[in-house]
Amino acid sequence: MGKLLIVGTVAFDAIETPFGKTDKILGGAATYIGLSASQFSVDSGIVSVVGGDFPKEYLEMLNSKNIDTSGIEIIKDGKTFFWSGKYHNDLNTRDTLITDLNVLANFKPVVPEHFLNSDFLMLGNLHPSVQLSVIEQISSKPKLVVLDTMNFWMDNTLDELLEVIKKIDVITINDEEARQLSGEYSLVRAAQKIHKMGPRYVVIKKGEHGALLFNNGDVFFAPALPLEEVFDPTGAGDTFAGGLLVIWRVHMISLLEI
Amino acid sequence: MGKLLIVGTVAFDAIETPFGKTDKILGGAATYIGLSASQFSVDSGIVSVVGGDFPKEYLEMLNSKNIDTSGIEIIKDGKTFFWSGKYHNDLNTRDTLITDLNVLANFKPVVPEHFLNSDFLMLGNLHPSVQLSVIEQISSKPKLVVLDTMNFWMDNTLDELLEVIKKIDVITINDEEARQLSGEYSLVRAAQKIHKMGPRYVVIKKGEHGALLFNNGDVFFAPALPLEEVFDPTGAGDTFAGGLLVIWRVHMISLLEI
Repeated sequence: MGKLLIVGTVAFDAIETPFGKTDKILGGAATYIGLSASQFSVDSGIVSVVGGDFPKEYLEMLNSKNIDTSGIEIIKDGKTFFWSGKYHNDLNTRDTLITDLNVLANFKPVVPEHFLNSDFLMLGNLHPSVQLSVIEQISSKPKLVVLDTMNFWMDNTLDELLEVIKKIDVITINDEEARQLSGEYSLVRAAQKIHKMGPRYVVIKKGEHGALLFNNGDVFFAPALPLEEVFDPTGAGDTFAGGLLVIWRVHMISLLEI
Repeated sequence: MGKLLIVGTVAFDAIETPFGKTDKILGGAATYIGLSASQFSVDSGIVSVVGGDFPKEYLEMLNSKNIDTSGIEIIKDGKTFFWSGKYHNDLNTRDTLITDLNVLANFKPVVPEHFLNSDFLMLGNLHPSVQLSVIEQISSKPKLVVLDTMNFWMDNTLDELLEVIKKIDVITINDEEARQLSGEYSLVRAAQKIHKMGPRYVVIKKGEHGALLFNNGDVFFAPALPLEEVFDPTGAGDTFAGGLLVIWRVHMISLLEI
């Protein structure tokens, strides 16, 4: 038991921070979640889509980390999803410069047969209808379904997002998104409202200030390690989600074995 | 052993938050520090100054909490220090509307004789030359000297402030003040620079995000309890400092007794 399926973007990012600038580099929510989870031994697979421009070396790198990429569809004459952003001086805020959906625009996810019985499902940031389609494909009810999302989907596809949120166990969002989704400034009240939308567990990420886990009236706080130097925070939330999911999985498995 | 001396303002505050508005109520750094410390059994005294307009009932209330007020000078024909401020919607930022120094303008602190051998000294937010004068009056070197200060003194009396900071063990400041004092954005680097100014312990308060304690390359993190409702955050930092000091004192005494 213990298969972990990750759905999310596999992408190119071009990033500018006060400390440096990159051309297209490997990015995407599923990439960060998968690489983070792979630090622990886990059978994981990614469901995503890329274009013919996506380097084979990147897929091989993921495979070498024991991440199954057979669910990453390659559209030969398409282009990979591209995001470009520029961070402000405090690294807590950023402007999106370019969002080229490319092959993501018509993405119909297909879960490989050997992942249809996944026990753990991580729905990375993506269109909620894509997230919903994956939930519906998993034949056995997973032990844990975790969803990450963003203000973009709250602005543009709220109804579909609320539909997915009904069906998950854990939601991970940042403080501003929690406020937007709930209409409450207090994070305690925001979590209460989001609980009522579906998830038993509400994880609110506060960047450098750590993260709060709300469940059944209890609250657990995880601090963030203060760093001397922060170079590029892209993917930090996904990396956190990948680690959280794997730790949770280990914990649930050990509970089941006892 | 274990006498605790607190120096700081005893004041009137008028406060406006998104949730309510007060006329003149009891305020001041020494008031909050003293009331917080009094929750634990401790022999404490306050050194401060008030005007003839300061209600006797407030002094009696402090006495009833086992706080010695013989060091609070009363200038009969003077007026008590008055501060008025308005909080913004997020309660993390505020505008000062009025600062009437009144009797504080010419304050020459006098430590009562029975507190000249204090073991623990808390220098609440005040003019650094007042803080320095109290350090110089304490005959025996205290076991722990804690200083709280604000951006106002960094802007206006930086040289005097640096002189006091040389002589203390612990500084408590908020994140923005740590950045201003050190010229470093990273709190890890800010703490390193502030260590070099004198204090072995640097406590950086982050409001609702908790507080960091830096010492000798180590960092300890204390979360803040997330509240459903925040009504008025005035004095939160002083209340925290009062509690911190008393816990520290208990810890040091128990170490000495072992």
